[in-house]
Amino acid sequence: MSKYDKLVTNAAGRIVPTILNGKPAVPYMGIGKFKPTGRKAAPLIATCADYPDDGNKVVTDLKDALVRSGLKDGMTISTHHHFRNGDLVANQIFDIAKEMGVKDLMWFPSASFQCHEPLTKYLEDGTIHHIEGSMNGALGRFTSNGKMKGLGVLRSHGGRYQAVQDGEVHIDIAVIAAPASDPFGNSNGVNGPAACGLLGFALADSQYADKVIVVTDNLVPFPCIPWQINGNLVDYVVVMDQIGIPEKIISGTTEVTKSPDRLLLAEWTAQFCNEAGILHDGFSFQAGAGGTALSIGIYFADILRERGWKARFARGGSNKYLVKMLEEGLTEYILDGQTFDLEGVRSMRENPHHVNTSPFTSYNYHGKGNFASLVDVTILGATEVDVNFNANVVTHSDGYLLHGIGGWQNCLFAKCTILPIPLFRDRIPVILDKVTTLCGPGELIDVIVTERGIAINPLRTDLIEKMKNSALPIRTIQELKAEAEKICGVPEKPKFSDEIVAVVKWVDGTVIDSVRRVIV
Amino acid sequence: MSKYDKLVTNAAGRIVPTILNGKPAVPYMGIGKFKPTGRKAAPLIATCADYPDDGNKVVTDLKDALVRSGLKDGMTISTHHHFRNGDLVANQIFDIAKEMGVKDLMWFPSASFQCHEPLTKYLEDGTIHHIEGSMNGALGRFTSNGKMKGLGVLRSHGGRYQAVQDGEVHIDIAVIAAPASDPFGNSNGVNGPAACGLLGFALADSQYADKVIVVTDNLVPFPCIPWQINGNLVDYVVVMDQIGIPEKIISGTTEVTKSPDRLLLAEWTAQFCNEAGILHDGFSFQAGAGGTALSIGIYFADILRERGWKARFARGGSNKYLVKMLEEGLTEYILDGQTFDLEGVRSMRENPHHVNTSPFTSYNYHGKGNFASLVDVTILGATEVDVNFNANVVTHSDGYLLHGIGGWQNCLFAKCTILPIPLFRDRIPVILDKVTTLCGPGELIDVIVTERGIAINPLRTDLIEKMKNSALPIRTIQELKAEAEKICGVPEKPKFSDEIVAVVKWVDGTVIDSVRRVIV
Repeated sequence: MSKYDKLVTNAAGRIVPTILNGKPAVPYMGIGKFKPTGRKAAPLIATCADYPDDGNKVVTDLKDALVRSGLKDGMTISTHHHFRNGDLVANQIFDIAKEMGVKDLMWFPSASFQCHEPLTKYLEDGTIHHIEGSMNGALGRFTSNGKMKGLGVLRSHGGRYQAVQDGEVHIDIAVIAAPASDPFGNSNGVNGPAACGLLGFALADSQYADKVIVVTDNLVPFPCIPWQINGNLVDYVVVMDQIGIPEKIISGTTEVTKSPDRLLLAEWTAQFCNEAGILHDGFSFQAGAGGTALSIGIYFADILRERGWKARFARGGSNKYLVKMLEEGLTEYILDGQTFDLEGVRSMRENPHHVNTSPFTSYNYHGKGNFASLVDVTILGATEVDVNFNANVVTHSDGYLLHGIGGWQNCLFAKCTILPIPLFRDRIPVILDKVTTLCGPGELIDVIVTERGIAINPLRTDLIEKMKNSALPIRTIQELKAEAEKICGVPEKPKFSDEIVAVVKWVDGTVIDSVRRVIV
Repeated sequence: MSKYDKLVTNAAGRIVPTILNGKPAVPYMGIGKFKPTGRKAAPLIATCADYPDDGNKVVTDLKDALVRSGLKDGMTISTHHHFRNGDLVANQIFDIAKEMGVKDLMWFPSASFQCHEPLTKYLEDGTIHHIEGSMNGALGRFTSNGKMKGLGVLRSHGGRYQAVQDGEVHIDIAVIAAPASDPFGNSNGVNGPAACGLLGFALADSQYADKVIVVTDNLVPFPCIPWQINGNLVDYVVVMDQIGIPEKIISGTTEVTKSPDRLLLAEWTAQFCNEAGILHDGFSFQAGAGGTALSIGIYFADILRERGWKARFARGGSNKYLVKMLEEGLTEYILDGQTFDLEGVRSMRENPHHVNTSPFTSYNYHGKGNFASLVDVTILGATEVDVNFNANVVTHSDGYLLHGIGGWQNCLFAKCTILPIPLFRDRIPVILDKVTTLCGPGELIDVIVTERGIAINPLRTDLIEKMKNSALPIRTIQELKAEAEKICGVPEKPKFSDEIVAVVKWVDGTVIDSVRRVIV
């Protein structure tokens, strides 16, 4: 089986394969243009007659659970990333697979981290055939160098849910590491030594996988309350000493920025929202966990406090700053997809207004709507943007796969999407004629805020009108690009082979772009 | 299409059809014997592109929503019964269908009540072809008299979930009356003038119906927290003045019994549990909302308090007595399937230890286990039992369909099932040679408590052993039957035609018995 086949040019002008790892795929057709016609994936019908009457699904160890689940060559094994760089479970699965001599597995994580670098050896020896999920750090380098046996497939958090729901990806065995579980498999992320907040990224896995294994270091008596994963979907429960390293569960980027340039981006972004009328009593926003985003949240909080307003809801990734807003009454709710620090975990555990969500509620494009388009303003990052406001978030200026899509594509559907980004990084301009990898179509990106000016997408005539008398430095994106190039020169492009090593899916499961092998 | 076809004798010796309303069905094979092999029902894939970006799914009125949902002849329309006798929505659906000239609908309620008597006219005029769900009162009489065009199909709460999940029943349009909803369709039962506690009976409907309509009299801004129904599954939201009559939402049977006979049953049942070691620190129980059951709960509470024990969980139907136990610390959790009074509603709204459940978590036999078999003791009623401990809960001594199965069949899977029942009602003995309608196989029924003695199922040699020195009047079921007949005589049997008017499904979707037309 070749990695890919049948190249076509999609609606964004990108050359993409229509056969991915032997399976057909639809090329990107434009936003909202692809209309699915089929039915959702249909999991096997189980029966209580095959499960213990006393509800005790605990088995000896992870190997026992994998053997009982029928682990064999070619299967798809999924994991979630709520432990981020503190995950102690995913690598063990493949250690066991290696020990059992199982080959050609597909790893389907909701994201991967530096701690998963040891899996490189299993990509090399054929235990893992390929990864569909984020390929970062060593895994990204491995993929970008063309060494992975299969084609990498990058999806957004919502796209991952969509792919599982629609049957594009069939999970044979889901392994769900859970900070608290009862013997029946009801489990949550808020209690226990490895508390990570929630388990939303594992929802699709629990609903659609043939076999579901919950792994915990904190077995509690039935019922485990709250249950974020339903025990009624779980086959086996495994107890081990430690499933995650709490201090590494916390994201690395949860302190506000101290950089004067970044603070300027934050201030201008907040001011823009204020002047454009986006910020109002009852508004809603999603920032991220980066230093700039956190600072924007603080500016928002200041404005709300000053006016006596409150946000109706803030979307998480939650952190101590967002929790403070909730506890101060500056937002009525946090709708949270992942907790980025232990304050987020505590708040979710204690406060019914800190609500756990999932890629299903928040991001799945193949639902009857989702939450993303209800958000007034979302603040995102990008590695590159181009003069048509298209943006890239997966490859770096050197052409290497740098990180996953996360919820980034999904969030673009907010009523206003703003990218506060530096005009250049390491003397390489961020605004190009054409992004290396297209992750987000320019039609959905409304505003670019840089330290040398703010560009509004010409499609947003309403925002241009509102800002026409602003003291903020509103510029065209071409002007910003020219200014960066005046300072840094036109950057040299990374050198790529024609060989495709990965593809980027759009939120509807279509293929929006290809990632090519980097020529070293 | 004939109502039914192809009669066979099932594993319980009952003659049942294997074609129901034109669709094939499996005859009952014994407990845990039928092993499903297929896949779950697969709902249509939706796309956000077809739903409003701003999340506002509110349409003009219920008729508008039904028209947009494509209401037409022969469709299956589902409703839930959390409003019990105070439901103001279900009848309106069929008024509209009648007005539109739509015919041959199948009504698929999770239960029906006296307030639905007006639907009789639509059964007569062909607007409704038949009901699959409980047929009580006037609807039961109508069915038992052979007047319904189609065959009635009675299912337990868990069986209803199973039937929808397994694709036995395809819901075209689900109408979910919700005491609180946002314009996106996120909705709950805990807030608003018609607060009914939870919406668990509508879960399957929201997950599997082609079109989902939420009807509310309390529209709140997004997000409606908590959401018990996911807006991501909802097509339309309808706002009307009143969806339920609060005082009728409360069950009629929420006061403890004052009858000395019933109090004796309660006392003996509690004493039995105590002496048999069923009642222990950390135990769990499910009683019901009847007067006897409530009294048993009070006896349990007394014993727990006296010993300094607490239950790990109590299953609801919740009511003020159960809430008091929770608030007094006599049970750690209430796992609740429906709230029977406003104290239950308040507690569920306020107390995170009062947890809402659904037929999926609690009762679905085609899951990877369910909660019912984890319960230490469940206390249930019955209209009849026989010398083999088989029990009937749907037909009355006059042969008429009296009420639905509710969670009764599902609860039989508890570690110990006790039926406290009077030895005779209106001078008609309750213990027979053979129950009129078989709803629960005797193998699952462990103890019968009557005011003249307690019979233990001979299969439960463990319980017989434990109780051998008890002062409680332990008797054989034959002795109890003889005693009743000595007092009342052998009752005359109701007269039935051969014609089958309804069938009773077992928890696994197989047909356990038929209900025949009553000869007047």
